[in-house]
Amino acid sequence: MNSFGRLFRVSIFGESHGDFVGVNIDGCPAGIGMAAADFAEDIERRKPGAKGTTPRKEDDIPQFISGVFNEKATGAPLTILFKNSNTRSGDYEKQRAVPRPGHADFVAHKKFNGFEDYRGGGHFSGRLTVAIVAAGVVAKKIIESISTGNKIGIHSTILEIGGETDIEKGLQKAIDEKDSVGGIVECRVNNLPIGLGEPFFDSAESIISHAVFSIPAVKGIEFGAGFAAAKMFGSQHNDALINADGTTKTNNAGGILGGITNGNDLVFRIVVKPTSSTPKEQQTLNSETGNVEPFSVKGRHDLCIALRVPVILEAVTAMVIADLMLITKK
Amino acid sequence: MNSFGRLFRVSIFGESHGDFVGVNIDGCPAGIGMAAADFAEDIERRKPGAKGTTPRKEDDIPQFISGVFNEKATGAPLTILFKNSNTRSGDYEKQRAVPRPGHADFVAHKKFNGFEDYRGGGHFSGRLTVAIVAAGVVAKKIIESISTGNKIGIHSTILEIGGETDIEKGLQKAIDEKDSVGGIVECRVNNLPIGLGEPFFDSAESIISHAVFSIPAVKGIEFGAGFAAAKMFGSQHNDALINADGTTKTNNAGGILGGITNGNDLVFRIVVKPTSSTPKEQQTLNSETGNVEPFSVKGRHDLCIALRVPVILEAVTAMVIADLMLITKK
Amino acid sequence: MNSFGRLFRVSIFGESHGDFVGVNIDGCPAGIGMAAADFAEDIERRKPGAKGTTPRKEDDIPQFISGVFNEKATGAPLTILFKNSNTRSGDYEKQRAVPRPGHADFVAHKKFNGFEDYRGGGHFSGRLTVAIVAAGVVAKKIIESISTGNKIGIHSTILEIGGETDIEKGLQKAIDEKDSVGGIVECRVNNLPIGLGEPFFDSAESIISHAVFSIPAVKGIEFGAGFAAAKMFGSQHNDALINADGTTKTNNAGGILGGITNGNDLVFRIVVKPTSSTPKEQQTLNSETGNVEPFSVKGRHDLCIALRVPVILEAVTAMVIADLMLITKK
Amino acid sequence: MNSFGRLFRVSIFGESHGDFVGVNIDGCPAGIGMAAADFAEDIERRKPGAKGTTPRKEDDIPQFISGVFNEKATGAPLTILFKNSNTRSGDYEKQRAVPRPGHADFVAHKKFNGFEDYRGGGHFSGRLTVAIVAAGVVAKKIIESISTGNKIGIHSTILEIGGETDIEKGLQKAIDEKDSVGGIVECRVNNLPIGLGEPFFDSAESIISHAVFSIPAVKGIEFGAGFAAAKMFGSQHNDALINADGTTKTNNAGGILGGITNGNDLVFRIVVKPTSSTPKEQQTLNSETGNVEPFSVKGRHDLCIALRVPVILEAVTAMVIADLMLITKK
Repeated sequence: MNSFGRLFRVSIFGESHGDFVGVNIDGCPAGIGMAAADFAEDIERRKPGAKGTTPRKEDDIPQFISGVFNEKATGAPLTILFKNSNTRSGDYEKQRAVPRPGHADFVAHKKFNGFEDYRGGGHFSGRLTVAIVAAGVVAKKIIESISTGNKIGIHSTILEIGGETDIEKGLQKAIDEKDSVGGIVECRVNNLPIGLGEPFFDSAESIISHAVFSIPAVKGIEFGAGFAAAKMFGSQHNDALINADGTTKTNNAGGILGGITNGNDLVFRIVVKPTSSTPKEQQTLNSETGNVEPFSVKGRHDLCIALRVPVILEAVTAMVIADLMLITKK
Repeated sequence: MNSFGRLFRVSIFGESHGDFVGVNIDGCPAGIGMAAADFAEDIERRKPGAKGTTPRKEDDIPQFISGVFNEKATGAPLTILFKNSNTRSGDYEKQRAVPRPGHADFVAHKKFNGFEDYRGGGHFSGRLTVAIVAAGVVAKKIIESISTGNKIGIHSTILEIGGETDIEKGLQKAIDEKDSVGGIVECRVNNLPIGLGEPFFDSAESIISHAVFSIPAVKGIEFGAGFAAAKMFGSQHNDALINADGTTKTNNAGGILGGITNGNDLVFRIVVKPTSSTPKEQQTLNSETGNVEPFSVKGRHDLCIALRVPVILEAVTAMVIADLMLITKK
Repeated sequence: MNSFGRLFRVSIFGESHGDFVGVNIDGCPAGIGMAAADFAEDIERRKPGAKGTTPRKEDDIPQFISGVFNEKATGAPLTILFKNSNTRSGDYEKQRAVPRPGHADFVAHKKFNGFEDYRGGGHFSGRLTVAIVAAGVVAKKIIESISTGNKIGIHSTILEIGGETDIEKGLQKAIDEKDSVGGIVECRVNNLPIGLGEPFFDSAESIISHAVFSIPAVKGIEFGAGFAAAKMFGSQHNDALINADGTTKTNNAGGILGGITNGNDLVFRIVVKPTSSTPKEQQTLNSETGNVEPFSVKGRHDLCIALRVPVILEAVTAMVIADLMLITKK
Repeated sequence: MNSFGRLFRVSIFGESHGDFVGVNIDGCPAGIGMAAADFAEDIERRKPGAKGTTPRKEDDIPQFISGVFNEKATGAPLTILFKNSNTRSGDYEKQRAVPRPGHADFVAHKKFNGFEDYRGGGHFSGRLTVAIVAAGVVAKKIIESISTGNKIGIHSTILEIGGETDIEKGLQKAIDEKDSVGGIVECRVNNLPIGLGEPFFDSAESIISHAVFSIPAVKGIEFGAGFAAAKMFGSQHNDALINADGTTKTNNAGGILGGITNGNDLVFRIVVKPTSSTPKEQQTLNSETGNVEPFSVKGRHDLCIALRVPVILEAVTAMVIADLMLITKK
């Protein structure tokens, strides 16, 4: 299904070149504040414009279609639209025969039997992440509203771009090479209650990774020590419990044991692949000629999509936490 | 919830020291063969006994409680039990004050308010993976029964143990150090149809990782080039389409684009943390004394749980594929 | 949750006095025709205007926000909006202290802690049934597209209004009494495949009644002989199988045995309570004065909401059948 | 799916002539008491033996396979088995060509392509209702444990048997006619909190009827005034609110308005069709001869299955209430 969550359920919809993209949220408790201004900061963080990001500009003011009254959630299904103000009607019909490398063009065509909206990636467009960010804002509000302890903080940081921890340097590499680059982003959540998640199929790692891989371009995730654990001894990896509140001496588990949050910081990292639309010439099959031919991307694009991922990563993490807290707390 | 799948739905249950562990499967098509002998090979592969694994022995003959008639699935809910023949009744009550490092003891106690079955890890025990393996056998049968193309093959391989690609060497390291080690396991699936998965929340990566993190001790997953993508340029990472059947020149995407399988081999790797029960002395909080005290594991355990993971990894992968094929094919 | 269906999943949203009501549909197969004109007939049937119905007029032209391209479903989530053109901004704030008898005012206030949109019934408004009707149109198209046998026909008929089988007479009773009346509506589906539904929890009766009670004002449902079965002998009620295609001599089962469709016409009847907004003076508690006081409905309303139910009943029935056919057929 | 509930999820399994029938429950809170003795009363109420019921006797002592430790729920998935001690191995193979009128034999054969367990009705057997009764006992315990107000009481009463309110008289009718009879059963729940249920698709009526139609032989349900509402005026049917706690003067709504419980008694009635296995000769198609032939039921059966329904009806009602309370309360 194209939705996520059990008690806080998010469905996103829309296409790159449609009139709107949007989100339908089921399970937002009544009374949560829903002023458009509350969404501005996170939506701004997602916006392009910085070095290495695409210049496509959208106003991205949330339009509340349902579930909001007097700037508060009513408890009924919540629908938010974002206008697509900047859709240039390109000559997409011609490009159909040439699936862009790294993009969903080929699989979309196959999966939807040729009925897909192929303009600008259609439903597969990164444009839909604005709807995810909006859902994240709502989720953060819910977390704050139902949390009984210290304020739960969700923070994402870029660790690496193009293999460099100096982000500017990584971007410059892409500019110099006239190519695109990827990166690694870390998310940390503190003050999370103990006990979120289930022993097997709905382990905290299961639910988080499920949500995280809905972000386009993410190709890997690791919790705590992650892949480095493969080279550690058990005595090194195990975190010694040192406090009755769950605090451990180290945090190689990334805050999750047996699928359940253990009271330490939740820590995980994701890898974001290089932007598929690279300025460099590539190759792909032209289905009309039947030949593998050179391919060049038209227009300007993000050199590094990872730059825009942090706020989206926080959003899906918040969605997970809100849902697990609603399920667990009672 | 403690179940997985939409049309092929698997629920596992049981405890380490209960009479049985088992699995309830909803959505197994009528007519699928269900002879106990069909389960023997995969169950054997999961069994302990080899170097580096625990000597606990179970017969593990599947007992069909429902949904099977004349050695065929009836289409009604399928229940399979496995007898726990080898449960030694240890002095678990005393050990409760001392949560084992790396285990779920502490979180289980908190999450279930002290009512958890604490004997041998209770419901969190790796013992339940025999139920997952059984579900995997059923899933493989379904895949074969509904597949219309070449035989879909699901194969897991251990890539590294204790940081060594020579597995024996990695194990020897653990033995020499009197410690436990982790490892990296790869799963490959060939002949998968194009079009499994959804664009965002139920991307193929989302569903697979959801299932994979239900395996105890898994702490990371990466698809195709995975974390290495963070150091690649876009022109390197993009896979050039070279054939109308979806074949690409390289497979850095690991067989998934835009969340959808693209006709190439599905390839992903997971990291398995070192076995939590290590022979080495560790530390943990004694809740009775209130002190952090030295802790030693009693009895014998797997030195490297990763050794037993391949068949379990294949099982959850088969569960995902069976479910996605049932959903997608129609 | 505020959605229905497993593979064909419908979520409706909106409020009586919001800008739009709408529907989000997940699982509509790609290629299904989606011209606005295709919706006209059913939407017209739902419209007020006839004798006994409210004069509120809406244009009700579906606006496709997502999932449609070149008048065909793309396979991505489908969103349809309907503009609320006729929302008079009444003095609703004042009326809050006086919950209307038979309406959801009181429960909405309690359930949503006073944050409900109380204008014109808010989210509880019958206005949202236009979104259900739209989902029904989509469902009928899917049924036609995946059906392999004779055309499946879904038809609702009003059997009784105000206790009279002569509908005009029943309405006249309401007009004469200056009161509202209810009715009984029957739904019949022919050419349904054998085998839809599950033995227990998702019996065909379970799923159908689940959907049917989402229609406001429905207070009962019966299949085949229904409540009359309580006075029959088994030898009378049992339907003798007379043909290998499943045809039975009688159809007291209403086309369902053991929870599964049996190849005969699906037949069920529902009761629609009298319109809650009756012209007659009633009583209710004024929460400001604390007194039970006389209450009179302002404005004009449907005298008999049952008149508008048939097309909505067909819609939810089509939703069920589309979903069950997608699940069962494979 | 063959399961019910969102947070309190019940799956039943088994066949009439298998070794066991059983239930798997996901979402039972840790600490709920689980002594076998707690189940005795309700299981006893379901048992045959009374006038008009079948003499098949089962001990029906619950065997806790998982999720119970020291006679308390652990919070892990709960599995309960009931031994089928009384399965006579009849000559079922021969009877396959002759589907019993009123039973699921024909649809089971079609739906499951001939792989169904046909012995004694297989999975469709009323025998599985013992598993539902067990789930109901658990549900009642949960309701009591999470309820904050007066004790919620769930009580079913037989209103009519064979068209007679004097139940003995109705049964005698069946005995005299050598036929089977049906009946009407009412369920009442008091002290239910206000606010359970959702406005449309998951209205309280939707969820209750969904659960209720999982009981074999139920063919209709009505809430409050039910079908009688079709003959009432709005001013008669509307219940005047007379107290701030939600109490209304009358209860024609049966305790539900706008799909939401309103603080009055929940009241609904169901019709149970006459037992399909009637002593009277009937007709059915013999698939071997291709002829419609006389058919006689072998062995002894319930003359009136409605007699055993009350405790099952309470069970499914308790399942619904437990689930809705877990969802709503927070």
